Order: sequence, then C-alpha cells, then structure tokens
Amino acid sequence: MKSEIQIIEDIRKWCTHRSRDVIKGIGDDTAVIRMGNKSLLITSDMMLEGVHFDLSLITPFQLGYKFLAINISDIHAMGGVPSYFFISLGLPESTTNRFIKELYSGIIKIAERYDINIVGGDTCRSVSGLVLSGTLIGYGKRIIRRSGARVGDRIYVTGTLGDSSAGLYLLKRRRKRIYNLSSKIAEVNLMKRHLLPEPVSISESKGINAMIDISDGLLIDLWRMCDESRVGAVIYKEKIPLSEGLRKVCRKFRLDPYSYALKGGEDYVLLFTSPEESRKDAYCIGEIVKKGRYIIDEKNKKIRMRPEGYDHFRKNGV
Amino acid sequence: MKSEIQIIEDIRKWCTHRSRDVIKGIGDDTAVIRMGNKSLLITSDMMLEGVHFDLSLITPFQLGYKFLAINISDIHAMGGVPSYFFISLGLPESTTNRFIKELYSGIIKIAERYDINIVGGDTCRSVSGLVLSGTLIGYGKRIIRRSGARVGDRIYVTGTLGDSSAGLYLLKRRRKRIYNLSSKIAEVNLMKRHLLPEPVSISESKGINAMIDISDGLLIDLWRMCDESRVGAVIYKEKIPLSEGLRKVCRKFRLDPYSYALKGGEDYVLLFTSPEESRKDAYCIGEIVKKGRYIIDEKNKKIRMRPEGYDHFRKNGV
Repeated sequence: MKSEIQIIEDIRKWCTHRSRDVIKGIGDDTAVIRMGNKSLLITSDMMLEGVHFDLSLITPFQLGYKFLAINISDIHAMGGVPSYFFISLGLPESTTNRFIKELYSGIIKIAERYDINIVGGDTCRSVSGLVLSGTLIGYGKRIIRRSGARVGDRIYVTGTLGDSSAGLYLLKRRRKRIYNLSSKIAEVNLMKRHLLPEPVSISESKGINAMIDISDGLLIDLWRMCDESRVGAVIYKEKIPLSEGLRKVCRKFRLDPYSYALKGGEDYVLLFTSPEESRKDAYCIGEIVKKGRYIIDEKNKKIRMRPEGYDHFRKNGV
Repeated sequence: MKSEIQIIEDIRKWCTHRSRDVIKGIGDDTAVIRMGNKSLLITSDMMLEGVHFDLSLITPFQLGYKFLAINISDIHAMGGVPSYFFISLGLPESTTNRFIKELYSGIIKIAERYDINIVGGDTCRSVSGLVLSGTLIGYGKRIIRRSGARVGDRIYVTGTLGDSSAGLYLLKRRRKRIYNLSSKIAEVNLMKRHLLPEPVSISESKGINAMIDISDGLLIDLWRMCDESRVGAVIYKEKIPLSEGLRKVCRKFRLDPYSYALKGGEDYVLLFTSPEESRKDAYCIGEIVKKGRYIIDEKNKKIRMRPEGYDHFRKNGV
C-alpha cells in the first residue's frame, strides 16, 4: 500500500468538486464551504483502537476529551470557531455501559468548555476494537489556509513542542512498571499534554498568512504547509520552544528533546506564518524562503529537512 | 451492553444542546441546524467490515456506492437535498491501491448522479478490518421529521419491501455455491437491490407530516416513527408492496416473503404519513391511530406489532 500522503494525493485527484460554494476541498485542516456571507468549516477524524490509542494507557474520559480536542484544533487552525459535533462509535461487545458513559463525559466536558453542541452520530457494534469517528462543523470569517505562506514571512508556533510524544514515552514506561512516576510534576504534566490536550486558538488572526495545527509533528506539518504554499523554509533549532518538563525528563532518561520537538506528534499547537517581526502569542522559530527546507542547528550548521513524523500508515513512534 | 436503542436514548439524555440554532439533535434521520433562512441537514454513518458488510459478498465499487447511498437516503428522509460528503477510511495493511481506487469509483459514481461534492475526510491504517465512516451535509426548506405523524394519517411506503434482505440471502447461498443463480433476472434484481440501493426522494413534500427511511426494517422504523410522534399504527399485511422477484424467489425456496418485507432491513425506501387518501408516488399500507400498534393479516386477524428488525448490536439476519 502507498503512504498516507500518496493515498490522499490520489483521492484528491479523483474527487473534483463542481459546486462553486466549495472554497476548499481535500488538502487542508478543514474543508471550507460558502454559506451566505459566512464560511462553514468541516473536519473529520477517525481514531482506531490499536492504531491511535491504547486503552491500557488512556482512560475513556481522557479518550473522549482528546478526540474532540483534536477536531477543535483543526477548526482553530483555519481561524474558525467550532460549533457542532457528530460522533460515530463502533463498540466491541465487551464494552460496558460505564465505559460509554465515561467516554461521553470526556466529550461533554470539553464540548461545554468550548461551547460546542453534540448533535448527532451513529452507534454500532464492532467485531474488533473500539472505533471513534467524528465530524466537527464550525464557522469562520477570515479563513487562514495552509497555502498562504509568503517568502519573507516569519514562522511561529503557539506553544512548546515535543511534550505530548515525550508524555507517551513516559506512559509506556509506566505501564511496563519500569518506573513509578506518578509523583513527579514535570512528568505528570507531559503525560497530561498527551492525554488531555488543550486546543489553542489565535485571538487575532490579522497578519497571519498561513496556518496549520501540529498533529503529526513539526517537520511533517511544516512540510505540508510549504508544499501547499510552494515555498521553502528555514528553522532554527535553538529557537524551538521546549518546556522545562521536557528538558528535565530528557536529561533524566538521556533522550534528545529535539527529536521529540521536531518529530513527535500530537502537540496540537498552531504553526503559522506572518510578516510580523514578533508576536506576543507565539514563538518565532524561523522564516519562509523561496526554495529549500533546512534546519540550522546549534553550531550554525545547515541540515536538510525531511518530513519525518507520524505517518498514519507506518508504525514509527519516537 | 445495552441494546442500540437504549444506548442512543442514554446518549440523547447526556447531550443536551444549548444553541438555539440546533432545531433537531440526536433522534432523527439527520440533525437539523438553522443557517440563515435555510436548514442544514447532517447525517453520519459508519460501516464496519464483519458487521455491516462482508467483502466476499460485495465488491469495493458496490461498497462505495452503497455507503454514500445510505447517507443520501437519510437526507431524503428529511425532505432535503444532499450536497457535501466527507469520508473517513480505516484501511487494513493488506488493502491494495486497486481496492481503494474501486471503492472511490463507486462513491464518485453515485456522487455524480446526485450532484454531491466529496470535499474531505480522513485516511488511516486499521489493525483490524476495513472501516468506513461518512458525514453527508444537505439542505432543506420544508423539513419533515419523524415526529409529525398525526392520528388519522395514512401510512405510505415509496417502494417494494424485503428485496434487499432477500438479495442478501441469495448472495450468501451463491457464496456457498449451493446454487448458481447468476442467470435468473428476478434473483439478480434482488441482489442488486442489496448491493446497489437507489435512494429515492419525494418530489412533492406538501401534505407529508412525518417521514423516515426504512434502513433497519419496516416494523422497527415504523415503531421509531410512532415513538417519536407518540401515536399508534395499524398496517395491513396484504397492502405491503412485494416485488414479483421477491414472490418468485420465496416460492422457489419456500420462504415467507412477508418476513423479509416486515423485518428485512436495507431497503432504503421512504416511509411517510399523510392525511391524503391516495398518492401517485407511494403505496398506502395502513393508518396512524391513537394507541396500539397492530398488523392486520390476510384473515383479518389483529396481530400485535413488535419492533423486530436489524439491531446493530445483535446478529439477527433474516
């Protein structure tokens, strides 16, 4: 089978749309459909047991919370406001009523925080693992696409990177009982970033040319943005924001924090470009150039970038 | 685990929505959201390998076609026009590129026939079977709900019943090589009704008080409509339209055609109620009464109705 990117490219070619109301089809964080003077933003996500989550690492409450969170992040990445959520569940026969209730508690918790209405879905039996599939609909006025990055723009991220994937590493260690880490605040925070991500949004979208949310890792998502915008990029390793917790944990376990920050997925921070020289709400990590994609390391060495990160068709955890 | 109906009842209680733009949330064929002077209709469906389909009985083209067809039927059941389709796929590692292409050919074929744009979705790896999850968005002006049936209304269906489930019976026989039936037109037609359902729509919705599409079987879907409308119903067994093909096949294999027509699912014909005494586009099969739900059989005997049909949590094929 081809890679995820190739399959989506194929699908994109097959699915030409003819309605003039379709402003953006396949190939961004959400689809964009014109509705009078507003734009409707729609995103769909699927999470499968054994692929996207492991019920020995995440509680049903956390899973429900996280599932809606990642959809919210997609709407935010277009500069929109999420409104209506539809969830389809495939439930294995062993699923208890308590499990379903807790899963929904997590979904409802985050729905209330972000003022989202849960308005529909489908429920059926699964003969294999748990299946979650959701569609979130939102609104936007000024839509920000992946494809708007311009040469000379600065590259910004809204939060620290690598925390979620390092949190996953810790969760796996804990399951194996290699080490009991429940009492260390830094470690708990990283795990929380993985289990209960808080989707951020940009309050002031003025001046932002392109945006994407980092779900599969900085390198792969920046790569996508550059592809869509037909530009190059340079990022400075030392400018990438790392949390104190990530540094601490990486020192302790002799890991490279930048490997998590560059390639670790599921951070759900926003990556955007803007001609502005500084922003209060984000860290500048590089700039958009005409051609070439490079990382400048701490010794000022130019390293060719590669779109490494989470490919949904390959197992390649950090 | 509880039954599908009980689980959906629970979810409905938990998911109260606060936006005044939500005209209808969980509990009809689609959700209804106010958008200016229009109504947005949204339906989500999930199909899992081993639960909803068997790849030894259906081709990838037929599966894609059918998957979008059942979503179209939900929009039609609200009196709406389908417009935008989002599809999420969970693909087992053994999936070939050819399979993906044929699946999409089926989706695109019916999308073009009904003027639907495929505008997004998600693609990921599945560690178990094939997963299809879709969301279809449509528009409606005069929305017809399940809950509008009134005492005195006639009950109508737009087409013959039982064909699809009898078609499934034949497909299973064919797989077992019990009998080669490829050359019999009646039999091929029934199988086609199962594999490539053609969603119907009501051109003139004036005078229709309540509507639902028959996906899980006449009895179970009529039951749902009566529950939502808080009414009773009487149907006349002899008035239920049966195709010549169903009669033929049932004679041949000594089966009861009414068992298929009453309890067999996946016919995707519309069931509606109207005070009109006759309609050109549908067969009258009974009437809405204040209390009680009965079938009047060919000997004029009153049989208590039960909501028997396809429950997504139990294996109960006809």
